[in-house]
Amino acid sequence: MLLCDVGNTFLHFYHKGRIWKEKPYALTKKKENLPIYYISVNERFERCLLASHPYCINVGEYIELDTPYEGLGIDRKAACKAISDGVIIDAGSAITADIMHEGIHMGGYIMPGLAAYKKMCADISPALNKELEPGVNLYELPKNTTDALSFGAIKSVILMIKNTSRTKKLYFTGGDGKFFARFFENAIYDNTLVFKGMQKALEKHI
Amino acid sequence: MLLCDVGNTFLHFYHKGRIWKEKPYALTKKKENLPIYYISVNERFERCLLASHPYCINVGEYIELDTPYEGLGIDRKAACKAISDGVIIDAGSAITADIMHEGIHMGGYIMPGLAAYKKMCADISPALNKELEPGVNLYELPKNTTDALSFGAIKSVILMIKNTSRTKKLYFTGGDGKFFARFFENAIYDNTLVFKGMQKALEKHI
Repeated sequence: MLLCDVGNTFLHFYHKGRIWKEKPYALTKKKENLPIYYISVNERFERCLLASHPYCINVGEYIELDTPYEGLGIDRKAACKAISDGVIIDAGSAITADIMHEGIHMGGYIMPGLAAYKKMCADISPALNKELEPGVNLYELPKNTTDALSFGAIKSVILMIKNTSRTKKLYFTGGDGKFFARFFENAIYDNTLVFKGMQKALEKHI
Repeated sequence: MLLCDVGNTFLHFYHKGRIWKEKPYALTKKKENLPIYYISVNERFERCLLASHPYCINVGEYIELDTPYEGLGIDRKAACKAISDGVIIDAGSAITADIMHEGIHMGGYIMPGLAAYKKMCADISPALNKELEPGVNLYELPKNTTDALSFGAIKSVILMIKNTSRTKKLYFTGGDGKFFARFFENAIYDNTLVFKGMQKALEKHI
């Protein structure tokens, strides 16, 4: 079964335990007779997928999640389906945190992803157009602009996750998921969470 | 004495205890014989000021601060000059925090301002193009996109300030300074901090 998660930067694919990402305007040919089961948060990139392959099935409606949250992104829903207790942090273009408790989604929040953070600083002022330093010391006050920006971006995300996770297990996914996971003891990095949730939902329907 | 702080969005003026802001391309005429003592973090907007008034004096070099921080913005230096102990949070286009201890600047960090935060979210996805809700409940998990973005933006700034301020007094300034000040008990809002620092430095030189 070939699965695809259409995001706001990349299309992520999953096939027989292997995952990879592709750029929306440089999609590779897939076997024509293999259906692509997909979810999408980006209409434009979804059209790229549909143009590249004759047999694509949007399975968004199969992914049902017990939640009071209105308008939860389908990728977040899918990742939440993969676990029943814990916090899922998807650190990609945006960083989303979703709290699951006994199979029920309790709510969540959204922060900018690290790349967006960098871009935003550059937009404010050329003086703030710096690469983030992933190794910045988070326990000492910064003493130059690069460190000051990196400290502001990375530490604010970490403090938010610490504040809202309490004793729950943390599941990191997404491009920067591995980076953030290393700051937490009770953390698991799993870049297949969305696909695990999709599979779980599909098993009931296909 | 007419003072001016050229920022990345507005030019802020100070004259006889009164402060006001003007847009860079809509500067009002000032009395021709009155010198404008100014600092600037934005070259383009500085040129707007110079074009609008015949007698402008950049006083950046008069503002000396004891600090290990390299490349500290001149507006941050000026605000730091205004106090000897405490944390200064300037919440404008960017949000900067600077820690002063016994007259010495210990370091500081930079986060995006609320407007930049909103823009960044809109850039990531049209689905995230929402106004922030300043009254969002920060003690309950968000249950819709507007709350999720507002919670992520506002709470991350508050947690950072709490984490780095400890027992120090907090001095808020800048466009969103009053908004953030209300989340802290030991907070003062003073939108003249930069000008107080400029005055202090100028007294020695003029």
